[in-house]
Amino acid sequence: MQKKKQKPQAKMWQGRFSKSMAESMERLSFSLHFDKKLYQQDIAGSLAHAEGLHIAGVLNAAELKKMRSGLEGILADLNTHKPLFLDSDEDIHMGIERVLTERIGNLGKKLHTGRSRNDQVATDTRLYVRDKCKILIDNIRGLQLSLLTKAKEYRETILPGYTHVQQAQPILAAHYLLSFFWALERDISRLQAVSQRSDEMPLGSGALAGSAFPYPRKQVAKLLGFSSISKNSIDATAQRDFALEYLNALCCIGSLLSRYAEDFVIWNSAEYGFIRLGDEFTSGSSMMPQKRNPDSMELIRGKSARLLGNYSRLFTLIKGTPMCYSRDLQEDKEPIFDSTETVNICLEVMSNCISGLVFNESNILNRMQ
Amino acid sequence: MQKKKQKPQAKMWQGRFSKSMAESMERLSFSLHFDKKLYQQDIAGSLAHAEGLHIAGVLNAAELKKMRSGLEGILADLNTHKPLFLDSDEDIHMGIERVLTERIGNLGKKLHTGRSRNDQVATDTRLYVRDKCKILIDNIRGLQLSLLTKAKEYRETILPGYTHVQQAQPILAAHYLLSFFWALERDISRLQAVSQRSDEMPLGSGALAGSAFPYPRKQVAKLLGFSSISKNSIDATAQRDFALEYLNALCCIGSLLSRYAEDFVIWNSAEYGFIRLGDEFTSGSSMMPQKRNPDSMELIRGKSARLLGNYSRLFTLIKGTPMCYSRDLQEDKEPIFDSTETVNICLEVMSNCISGLVFNESNILNRMQ
Amino acid sequence: MQKKKQKPQAKMWQGRFSKSMAESMERLSFSLHFDKKLYQQDIAGSLAHAEGLHIAGVLNAAELKKMRSGLEGILADLNTHKPLFLDSDEDIHMGIERVLTERIGNLGKKLHTGRSRNDQVATDTRLYVRDKCKILIDNIRGLQLSLLTKAKEYRETILPGYTHVQQAQPILAAHYLLSFFWALERDISRLQAVSQRSDEMPLGSGALAGSAFPYPRKQVAKLLGFSSISKNSIDATAQRDFALEYLNALCCIGSLLSRYAEDFVIWNSAEYGFIRLGDEFTSGSSMMPQKRNPDSMELIRGKSARLLGNYSRLFTLIKGTPMCYSRDLQEDKEPIFDSTETVNICLEVMSNCISGLVFNESNILNRMQ
Amino acid sequence: MQKKKQKPQAKMWQGRFSKSMAESMERLSFSLHFDKKLYQQDIAGSLAHAEGLHIAGVLNAAELKKMRSGLEGILADLNTHKPLFLDSDEDIHMGIERVLTERIGNLGKKLHTGRSRNDQVATDTRLYVRDKCKILIDNIRGLQLSLLTKAKEYRETILPGYTHVQQAQPILAAHYLLSFFWALERDISRLQAVSQRSDEMPLGSGALAGSAFPYPRKQVAKLLGFSSISKNSIDATAQRDFALEYLNALCCIGSLLSRYAEDFVIWNSAEYGFIRLGDEFTSGSSMMPQKRNPDSMELIRGKSARLLGNYSRLFTLIKGTPMCYSRDLQEDKEPIFDSTETVNICLEVMSNCISGLVFNESNILNRMQ
Repeated sequence: MQKKKQKPQAKMWQGRFSKSMAESMERLSFSLHFDKKLYQQDIAGSLAHAEGLHIAGVLNAAELKKMRSGLEGILADLNTHKPLFLDSDEDIHMGIERVLTERIGNLGKKLHTGRSRNDQVATDTRLYVRDKCKILIDNIRGLQLSLLTKAKEYRETILPGYTHVQQAQPILAAHYLLSFFWALERDISRLQAVSQRSDEMPLGSGALAGSAFPYPRKQVAKLLGFSSISKNSIDATAQRDFALEYLNALCCIGSLLSRYAEDFVIWNSAEYGFIRLGDEFTSGSSMMPQKRNPDSMELIRGKSARLLGNYSRLFTLIKGTPMCYSRDLQEDKEPIFDSTETVNICLEVMSNCISGLVFNESNILNRMQ
Repeated sequence: MQKKKQKPQAKMWQGRFSKSMAESMERLSFSLHFDKKLYQQDIAGSLAHAEGLHIAGVLNAAELKKMRSGLEGILADLNTHKPLFLDSDEDIHMGIERVLTERIGNLGKKLHTGRSRNDQVATDTRLYVRDKCKILIDNIRGLQLSLLTKAKEYRETILPGYTHVQQAQPILAAHYLLSFFWALERDISRLQAVSQRSDEMPLGSGALAGSAFPYPRKQVAKLLGFSSISKNSIDATAQRDFALEYLNALCCIGSLLSRYAEDFVIWNSAEYGFIRLGDEFTSGSSMMPQKRNPDSMELIRGKSARLLGNYSRLFTLIKGTPMCYSRDLQEDKEPIFDSTETVNICLEVMSNCISGLVFNESNILNRMQ
Repeated sequence: MQKKKQKPQAKMWQGRFSKSMAESMERLSFSLHFDKKLYQQDIAGSLAHAEGLHIAGVLNAAELKKMRSGLEGILADLNTHKPLFLDSDEDIHMGIERVLTERIGNLGKKLHTGRSRNDQVATDTRLYVRDKCKILIDNIRGLQLSLLTKAKEYRETILPGYTHVQQAQPILAAHYLLSFFWALERDISRLQAVSQRSDEMPLGSGALAGSAFPYPRKQVAKLLGFSSISKNSIDATAQRDFALEYLNALCCIGSLLSRYAEDFVIWNSAEYGFIRLGDEFTSGSSMMPQKRNPDSMELIRGKSARLLGNYSRLFTLIKGTPMCYSRDLQEDKEPIFDSTETVNICLEVMSNCISGLVFNESNILNRMQ
Repeated sequence: MQKKKQKPQAKMWQGRFSKSMAESMERLSFSLHFDKKLYQQDIAGSLAHAEGLHIAGVLNAAELKKMRSGLEGILADLNTHKPLFLDSDEDIHMGIERVLTERIGNLGKKLHTGRSRNDQVATDTRLYVRDKCKILIDNIRGLQLSLLTKAKEYRETILPGYTHVQQAQPILAAHYLLSFFWALERDISRLQAVSQRSDEMPLGSGALAGSAFPYPRKQVAKLLGFSSISKNSIDATAQRDFALEYLNALCCIGSLLSRYAEDFVIWNSAEYGFIRLGDEFTSGSSMMPQKRNPDSMELIRGKSARLLGNYSRLFTLIKGTPMCYSRDLQEDKEPIFDSTETVNICLEVMSNCISGLVFNESNILNRMQ
């Protein structure tokens, strides 16, 4: 996505340093390859911040207009996948600022007035989580719809109900499918709770100790759709419990999908023969044409493991970090992104699979004890 | 707690089996040593269930009275640490049923009518989580009170504010202490959310397929203080997302405590000398009398690691378990108990430590850059 | 195991402190309930250390004899489950020292000469791991023997070989059973490697900086069966990588057992009907007499989750702990103990299950595609 | 890296299937973006396999030559970053086969004779781990050399030795640095053990049941530098304990680096002032010019958390997967790659940091108690 090299004039933190960062250190600290996923949130935050600077009298109307048009231009370019960044842009925030300054001149640097990287990142990440909660909820509703539709289709079909993978009592297939539906209801409710609990705008918190001038926090919050502002600047910049809670909500969804996937793997075996998964969701073998490998279900089961990996990673990351902001926290983003994308694709595939699911009622009846 | 051996006449599931369980299997499946912590919830559940059986016409008034008095007697005995259980009582549920039947005769066995181990355990665990959420919230409020009191005491004291363990900007000690307070507010809110999301009574769900007779679920739920009943019997008996969410809420608290503990460990060093922890919360050494080891803070930091261990364990446990109930789920209880107890003691110690915390203002001023 | 209270005259670290530890802190720091599992290693270490003190001229022959007899008496008492400890004995090391001093007078306190809690605990834990590796290897060999015997018994039996829980190619049952055998060979080799890599005696490292007098490290190491001594006193007291590596070796065993358990759960279903697990290793239901719930296999699958919990916990514990010894490290023991016991019982049950395993060849043939 | 779309004529497993995979399923199962890191191992494996096919009489000399030159051409192209792959190449194996067949015609398809994806992937991954162990060991030796050099440089410097972040006893700076050296020795030894334990060639194991024709396994193993061949075809294709053990070895390194990084973060504070990290390894702030943020050390500390994430993920992935190969196992690669790269960059940065480390002896003396 970015092309080599061309050192930026002045890295923000450069100041007194005589040597540039060692090459190994550059590789260690480089994060643009993943945090560019925040570009929409970062630009939205900057647009609102610019508005705030205008209200505070730091930017005049003309400057605001220029700043806004610069940021909107960058957003449009990134939305259409234009390559804007250089390898020397360490992270998305530096990248956007550099491009902005190249486009609108020194005014671009004024955007950092009254804002630190710490409250900026904390804001971006909360915006990201809030945006993704909405999409995740939509995808859950899509899966629920598939389940409802399928439950209606097989409203009379009887299945053996299992405990311990042993037939226990007969149940309706619809009852089974709706058990999935109801569990997903709690997942929606959990995501809503996450969204609400991260609904506090950190901007104005600075690096840790707030802003030196009267920053119109409530108005900026309103522009960004936050319903309140954070109460304590240290807490706002240093804590990541909202992210941990978010990863837990995704773990709950993933473990649920994995359990039903496990059932479908077993039911898809020739010995059970209860279901037929759509051709698109199984694979075969030229040498073994009888096989209908339930790859989709195995991948959903397998992918749920990475959700725990991401949770463990974030917990371990923040657990012993001293207050307030430490650079360790840069590592909070990849688990958030990865779990989000993993759950979204798993929800989508599960929903598609359910839509195409066929119960083989004669096999089921034959196997009933 | 229990004394050896004396095989029970008839284990519930024994039926057709010729041999008793192998000794190794008994050790593997034994859970009384930990699940006895559920005895209050189990007996509360049984009392309400007996009431339900009476409403449903399964128990007459005299039987109900006898059942109730039997259960209350057991509760009283366990509350006063009377040893009631035998090694042959595999779990708390079997133990209580055996004692009950010994005390009130065959009527005791009727308690299992219309109930399976699966909905019983699901109910007990939800009750436990609900009860513990209340206690945890009380303990958090205790810590918050210590923080508020200390913040008032040091309302004028100035501290260096740190990022990257480097002095960044001066802050008020009170501002620092209140950052802890505000983070704890979210922890309370998270526990309340957990409590609400597990506020659905599973009883009446049977092993997986509901009850064969008209069971007065709403009335039983009311007796147990549940505000609603579970919507789907499979979901109610098989899912443990409420437990995962609970463990996450505890992980959030633990990681928070650990971060402030990390600060206090550093500030307690001679090089910083910012704080003095109470004698009770440090240890010394006869050979090195200058040492004030911050054992309390190190233990809080160390104990938070077990919260992740418990979370990982529960996630991995449920992740691939097929539906509906499988015996793997027996393993869900120890992480719940252990995380609960760990967080409660850490909250208590942190609260006591904060109460006795002394800021050394002259050291702080000397070190300010 | 211990009875209430009776404050000890002088806790080792008490010295200058005016107040005793707060009650909450006592509960937080108490570890006797778990670290008493180290009593054999602790006494073995003390016996060798006493010998070392004699060689170094700190103890004369009579003192050594008295010390030895005191320690051996305590060992004998603990071996026969005599209750020796008080609630005021914070950990096993304090407990043993207190009892020793009560029994042999002030001489008992001399045992701590030239030794710190840090090198003592590091030695005890390495001894424990070494001892348990031997037992674990024996138990693996037991399981391997069961597999070999069963493979011989079914040397002509054909099974469908599965990939994706889909029949792929026919295999011999013996080939399947031996795949388990060969994987276990690597587990043995891993345990041997763990044992070798922790085969360095820390004693003589003191708290972190070695011993103040000429301590006969090599001779003490020989007495304890260590083949070498640690090279660096800081490394020896502070690092726990041997424990992490040990927990990984147990994770490997557990995940292996869990995968075969998963197969057996599926094969034990009525739909497959490939195997019959011994009555002792399944459970039934009075209401559903057809059920043969494979509880043993489900518990093995479920218990393997705690192995990851223990690994995660230890990693997270040590990850950010500053050098050298910190009190956090007290938390390293429970995961070691718990994983050891979990794997041992799972190996035993799996071995017993395999011994009693019956393949139902006619069902297998009927299901072959 | 790849450009859109162009459906391949015949996906290997397509056979009987009427519809192509759904688009969501394609995204779920796509792995080329990460498994292309295996290209060198995959081509090395294919070259040796072609040789094996020639020995077995499946390929004649001319065919072998053509195959070899085709594979070597692809290797050369990939080594020089030529874009060869299409979005429709689901994984690296398919990608290489497709390109090969386009270049050398139908002969390319013969490469899959006597080999299944399962033994191919198992071989590639073992080769990758073996190759990376060597590089990791080199990097550890680099860090050890930096430590030795620095220890010589400061051979007379005295440091306070710490326990509990409290000054305990004076030590030599060299002793401290060498503690790091000795711990790394065990890491080398662990990597060597991992390498040896995965030194068994799976090729010839097929999908799970071996090869249908006499495949010269020992000769192929020799070509690939394996010192032995796997003993059991099921074990060879299904187990991933070598990968878990590898991730553990990386966890051990990461947790070690993190502990020393933690010390350096503290020692780098103004209050300690013990060390000066090179300019390249710290960051500053235009607004706060006194700051020397130890970003390198914080990132090393933070990155170590992802190593646990990867371990947890792999354990959870394989824990409950039924035998033999399941598609879940595709998810084993990313944690292997990510942990490898993370540890390598952290070793390099730590080594560079140590090389440039300056102890401030006057500050140290001033702070000594």
